[in-house]
Amino acid sequence: MRMYNVIMKKRNGEVLTDEEIKFFVDGYTKGEIPDYQASAFMMAVYFQGMNSHETSILTKYMAQSGDMVDLSSIPGIKVDKHSTGGVGDKTTMVIGPIVASCGAPVAKMSGRGLGHTGGTLDKLESIPNLTTSIATEDFFDIVKNIGVSVIGQTGNLAPADKKLYALRDVTATVDNISLIAASIMSKKIAAGSDAILLDVKTGSGAFMKTIDASIELAEAMVSIGEHVGRKTVALITDMDRPLGNAIGNSLEVIEAVNTLKGNGPDDFTNICLHLAADMLYLAGKGDLQQCMNLAKDALESGRAFAKFKEMVAAQGGDVSVIDNTELFEKAPIVQEVLAEKDGWITAMDTERCGIASVVLGAGRESKEDTIDYSAGIILKAKLGDKVRKGQPLAVLYTSRENAVKTAEDMLKQGITIGGEQPEATPLIYARVTIDGVEKF
Amino acid sequence: MRMYNVIMKKRNGEVLTDEEIKFFVDGYTKGEIPDYQASAFMMAVYFQGMNSHETSILTKYMAQSGDMVDLSSIPGIKVDKHSTGGVGDKTTMVIGPIVASCGAPVAKMSGRGLGHTGGTLDKLESIPNLTTSIATEDFFDIVKNIGVSVIGQTGNLAPADKKLYALRDVTATVDNISLIAASIMSKKIAAGSDAILLDVKTGSGAFMKTIDASIELAEAMVSIGEHVGRKTVALITDMDRPLGNAIGNSLEVIEAVNTLKGNGPDDFTNICLHLAADMLYLAGKGDLQQCMNLAKDALESGRAFAKFKEMVAAQGGDVSVIDNTELFEKAPIVQEVLAEKDGWITAMDTERCGIASVVLGAGRESKEDTIDYSAGIILKAKLGDKVRKGQPLAVLYTSRENAVKTAEDMLKQGITIGGEQPEATPLIYARVTIDGVEKF
Repeated sequence: MRMYNVIMKKRNGEVLTDEEIKFFVDGYTKGEIPDYQASAFMMAVYFQGMNSHETSILTKYMAQSGDMVDLSSIPGIKVDKHSTGGVGDKTTMVIGPIVASCGAPVAKMSGRGLGHTGGTLDKLESIPNLTTSIATEDFFDIVKNIGVSVIGQTGNLAPADKKLYALRDVTATVDNISLIAASIMSKKIAAGSDAILLDVKTGSGAFMKTIDASIELAEAMVSIGEHVGRKTVALITDMDRPLGNAIGNSLEVIEAVNTLKGNGPDDFTNICLHLAADMLYLAGKGDLQQCMNLAKDALESGRAFAKFKEMVAAQGGDVSVIDNTELFEKAPIVQEVLAEKDGWITAMDTERCGIASVVLGAGRESKEDTIDYSAGIILKAKLGDKVRKGQPLAVLYTSRENAVKTAEDMLKQGITIGGEQPEATPLIYARVTIDGVEKF
Repeated sequence: MRMYNVIMKKRNGEVLTDEEIKFFVDGYTKGEIPDYQASAFMMAVYFQGMNSHETSILTKYMAQSGDMVDLSSIPGIKVDKHSTGGVGDKTTMVIGPIVASCGAPVAKMSGRGLGHTGGTLDKLESIPNLTTSIATEDFFDIVKNIGVSVIGQTGNLAPADKKLYALRDVTATVDNISLIAASIMSKKIAAGSDAILLDVKTGSGAFMKTIDASIELAEAMVSIGEHVGRKTVALITDMDRPLGNAIGNSLEVIEAVNTLKGNGPDDFTNICLHLAADMLYLAGKGDLQQCMNLAKDALESGRAFAKFKEMVAAQGGDVSVIDNTELFEKAPIVQEVLAEKDGWITAMDTERCGIASVVLGAGRESKEDTIDYSAGIILKAKLGDKVRKGQPLAVLYTSRENAVKTAEDMLKQGITIGGEQPEATPLIYARVTIDGVEKF
């Protein structure tokens, strides 16, 4: 078999065989197929697409290109959750404990923040002494004993994806649904859970800017998951506003804790309950309504909060800051951003809010940057709220004096105040399963 | 400027600016743009195309990526000729002398054979002692004194094309009209002639298999030539049969000599006169009919033959073999291929005939192969001819005893004998100028 022929075949719009796809993934991972053939092939795929079978096979071999995590020693149906990335997305810290406290184990490998979106590992590590670098055996033990653990990636998961993504990133071949879906799902499949809940963000702060594109991506990922024997469901959730009010690491932990205590923002609490319910559904804990009741009960009873504290303790974290979030280190500079006129908030540029928080020190512009855990933004008004001139729109937290003005300007540009109340938009747009799309 | 953005822009179907195209050609030639970006870009061009302006600009910068031959010290309008490659194509040896003997200088850089098509340099070098490696000044002197010289490429012509073609060749991005046209024309433009006659072959033995594709390529090349200020005309000529009867180096020289003496095959003589007439037309020697009369007179008067001998002598060749072609070294094995039934020759697979001659030793399968100048094929029957069982279809010449059977089988497979006389097809299908396409 020659890579030249595989490129030519796809370029001509033909369907590739399983063997041809395996030949490409294996050869490229081993360095036997050069970058210049892989990039030409990716561009051919960009134009000609891959059908759902090809996409699944591509994903399967990308997953198998490195270590495959074996969670079989942990009893029960293990459910993973993946978010396509949003601003203020601290759901893992809430739904992991909810789901675990209902008896479904959550063995989650998570990522770090880069660019305008944060990462769960960074958020958790803002809890003093908490570690996310845990050996596989210890990780399994925590999940067996407590039911939930969130750690950084261990081992060599889906190296084909890592190599291919780096190539696509510099050859303008990222934005193809099949390739995006294969990239995400290869890592999830290698991570070993039995079922996968996908939180596909849509809107100004998301990778997918439109609902249709988000649904298309969700359908591709659900198809892949089911094709390789993993039960998979996707929710299409709103990212035309930041999730909750807090953006920034310890600020988000505090909001997650408040939510676990029953005092979280309505939008965030609501999304967490839906995501948790669907994870419980995937874990076989009943129909969706039953699972929603389980999730609500876990939250209201305080069991989920207790579970979160157990997880923090098991990962070496200082639980006292969870019991009393006032103990988190505070940013030295606190600055309000005030509304410049009366009106309604008609639009929020979520990406701009995310970048403003990076400017304040809460994120990374490049992989080498260090994070200021206390930096970030607390929004005081959200999409659809009525505001008066001089009223605070947000509070900035930082230790970078010279970043305040920039972040303030970005936030003002990112929050549009209009003369008319905007129509309310849903938080969850659709639910995608192998049986089809249910729109809300 | 970033290559990423140039790739993205073309991928999205936008028209590139002159600066963007220059940035790509310069950066890729210097090695600043990596192969993997160039190949993704080539694939994007494959799908989205380039308009005629983009194609001309690409060609111009590819031509300017290396040495630009300056022929201005040679008086008169210098006309170059380029053939897209055929089997038995020995036209340069006939039309160069015709045109030169009519007063239009021909300073031609030619190529070697590879695969199923031969190269003019190899053919000329089958003349004992003749050299095609001539220093630029001596080359100019020969053209000034005699009017015609054919040498190998000197200097570093269009290195961008060399590098890009090697990349396209392994990434399935060769067959795009704009890229093919730019590749051919960049070298021709760098070679310095004032006007260019293109012989675009069409049919089973040609790169372009259909007349429409050949016309499309011709239009693209004529457009480029005129855009950069070189008068350019293209003839679309038949390659559904080998040109003339001889395939193989000294065999083709002998046929060229016979043609210059007025004893050549009709089809070959006819094509040579048309090509020569159009070169004279481009050199400003009159209208097409006047130029045809000039060409015929040069041939019939013996002036073209005398000019060929002058050129051979000037390039160090042994003229005695031209005067008496019996003196050419002969192949030790001579084998007839006989018709296996009565009928008409209804089809000739020209590519197969070319490969058969390579098998016999007349060509190269890889760049390192050496050539047996005396090897090849003389066809005894051509497309449309009536043949009887047992009558010779061809004579094979070789020194490779074990190649005879293979070549014989290939030739038998490549020459179809049918029960009905086929319709006659033209030798020249069309003439393409900047003003349009004239079909014959």
